[in-house]
Amino acid sequence: MYNPHMDNELKGRWMRLQQALQRAGGDALLVTSNVNLYYLSGRIFSGMALLLPEGAPLFFVRRPVELHGDTVIYIRKPEEMLTALAERGIALPTHPLLELDAISYTEYQRYAKLFATGTPIGNGSPVLREVRTFKSVYEVGMLLRSGALHTEVYQKIPALFTPGMTDLDLSIEIERELRRHGSLGIFRIFGQSMEIFMGSLLAGDNADTPSPYDFAMGGGGLNASLPVGSNGTPLQEGMSVMVDMGGNFTGYMTDMTRVFSVGQLPDLALKAHDTALTIQERVQQMAAPGAPVADLYRVALEIAQQAELAPYFMGHRQQAGFVGHGIGLEINEAPVLAPRSKEQLAAGMVFALEPKFVLPGVGAVGVENSFLVTDTGVEKLTLCEEKILPLGKA
Amino acid sequence: MYNPHMDNELKGRWMRLQQALQRAGGDALLVTSNVNLYYLSGRIFSGMALLLPEGAPLFFVRRPVELHGDTVIYIRKPEEMLTALAERGIALPTHPLLELDAISYTEYQRYAKLFATGTPIGNGSPVLREVRTFKSVYEVGMLLRSGALHTEVYQKIPALFTPGMTDLDLSIEIERELRRHGSLGIFRIFGQSMEIFMGSLLAGDNADTPSPYDFAMGGGGLNASLPVGSNGTPLQEGMSVMVDMGGNFTGYMTDMTRVFSVGQLPDLALKAHDTALTIQERVQQMAAPGAPVADLYRVALEIAQQAELAPYFMGHRQQAGFVGHGIGLEINEAPVLAPRSKEQLAAGMVFALEPKFVLPGVGAVGVENSFLVTDTGVEKLTLCEEKILPLGKA
Repeated sequence: MYNPHMDNELKGRWMRLQQALQRAGGDALLVTSNVNLYYLSGRIFSGMALLLPEGAPLFFVRRPVELHGDTVIYIRKPEEMLTALAERGIALPTHPLLELDAISYTEYQRYAKLFATGTPIGNGSPVLREVRTFKSVYEVGMLLRSGALHTEVYQKIPALFTPGMTDLDLSIEIERELRRHGSLGIFRIFGQSMEIFMGSLLAGDNADTPSPYDFAMGGGGLNASLPVGSNGTPLQEGMSVMVDMGGNFTGYMTDMTRVFSVGQLPDLALKAHDTALTIQERVQQMAAPGAPVADLYRVALEIAQQAELAPYFMGHRQQAGFVGHGIGLEINEAPVLAPRSKEQLAAGMVFALEPKFVLPGVGAVGVENSFLVTDTGVEKLTLCEEKILPLGKA
Repeated sequence: MYNPHMDNELKGRWMRLQQALQRAGGDALLVTSNVNLYYLSGRIFSGMALLLPEGAPLFFVRRPVELHGDTVIYIRKPEEMLTALAERGIALPTHPLLELDAISYTEYQRYAKLFATGTPIGNGSPVLREVRTFKSVYEVGMLLRSGALHTEVYQKIPALFTPGMTDLDLSIEIERELRRHGSLGIFRIFGQSMEIFMGSLLAGDNADTPSPYDFAMGGGGLNASLPVGSNGTPLQEGMSVMVDMGGNFTGYMTDMTRVFSVGQLPDLALKAHDTALTIQERVQQMAAPGAPVADLYRVALEIAQQAELAPYFMGHRQQAGFVGHGIGLEINEAPVLAPRSKEQLAAGMVFALEPKFVLPGVGAVGVENSFLVTDTGVEKLTLCEEKILPLGKA
């Protein structure tokens, strides 16, 4: 409705959603969350989108003023949707799907009342989640652009360090570089419980502070109201510094982690880092359409066990139960590379793989990259030196 | 459960919530959102809190590991709450309240199943919202600390400017200073539709770009996935630069806006800015316990009308329908200073007042401050020069 150059891209999304809607037995998908309104329209607006079995969605817009398009209908409240449908001779759906995993109970009740009594309301969240799992060429392009800018910033990290800095000082300089390269700053996360600023930088034992969130790594943060990431630790000789900042330059986010060192790290840390790289290599070899994602996790864990590093794998005092996750408009899309996941990889999926270890007295080591599943295997979207690099100007 | 020095503060919150729970006819309040878990416990964790009519809440914790306290109970899934209650000889509530404005429909269903069939589930969101409206001395202290740091950063703004900068360049330098002064970066916003990075900086006509969000001001942003704030406008002679960045240094957020200029602004802009200051002064005089907040809005609008500036008041191409809002842990708390609001001011409320004008060809002018309602009037929490200051080193 707003980005004419996105016409074909949007039509493709609507078509794939319409096919999924049909498979789910629905005759309408009512979209109400920001991220999915963006997915359907190519821009953020306040309102909702009603996707019917055929044609372009109807965009019911509250704000901003001045949007244009054949199917843009301005409304003040959801109830006006009914009048608009009647005016266009469109029958009220009898099997509508709503975003039940995202919409609040109160909002749900308001929307549900619009439909006839007894109309069964289905869950559109898994439908949207599934369709969004498969990235189009346009979306892969956005992820590649994010990845390239992400890399440009990471390459500057060693030179951003000056002796005497804390983890927070260094994080702030990286945040600034991300913004100067076009980072939008925000991070979209599915679900209501996880909150984070631009990402995390973890130095020394702060990496071992358990997180309240389902993130791979923790960190105490600056305040009990946001206990994640840097906590003011002075960067000192023998510490690892793990940088895991979001690459949100385009709405589509790449996920990439690199590790830096202050001086020399102990042998165990170097061994653990090499083990993470081995895990990445092995998973990369196995990762192709048809590969069960649970197997990818299992292989990763086995390599950690063989190296006798299992107690440090994906955390130490608290361990995360996954080694990777889908990415896209949100940082935690499907599939999740975890022992009980049922999904198989398929062409068009994009996921982050993040084998990491937390070593008491040293900090976190390991690597994270974003990968596209192709017809025959995977391609890395985040290309940047993976060795542990010393902080400080070369 | 975690901050022993907050014991009395937390007990006061529980007591006020228990009184409100009783007024609402409930016998339990099940809290599931981050912001309210923080309010009840003094820290963020993953899980839920169950407040019964008496005593400390039960904290059902999934993550992080290693929390301690008499009423901390580790669980893996919500269903284990039932066993824990039975073990402690606590009967299942018969009139529970859930956060229906925040919890997703899917989550709601899971929690609702825990209670006996037919148990009426009430809405705890308004109860929490109402109690949180009245700040304790501890909370006022947090807001004062945020306000003081917020001011320190704003005082540096003129010196952060160098000729040739864009709005984004300047915004990035202010963001960095905020972080260096301890800003946590994130912004908590009630409801699911509004998203923003650290705040907004609006220069020239970008201030007139309509927003998809219910914010006072707009701005096109960098990308259709986050259309708010700076858009890369070069800062040029005759432009106003409005800085409205969040003051989240403590979890409690102050809201403050100041306007800067590049060179000289036209007379209409100076007049509009003076009118905003007059509105602030008049509202400040009227604002005291018992004052209907709708009256405060009406007076603000009347002054704008008398000055023949109504077409520019709170926006131009798109106008916001309020002139202020409660603040605290979230940026949009009660009360809202809008024509249809029913609330009256009461001692302990904290609100932001933001009379602003958007002038085509110039940009936005006006002021925003955070105020505490005392027994006799209001006290400003954000003390900082309110004149339009020229950008550039003095």
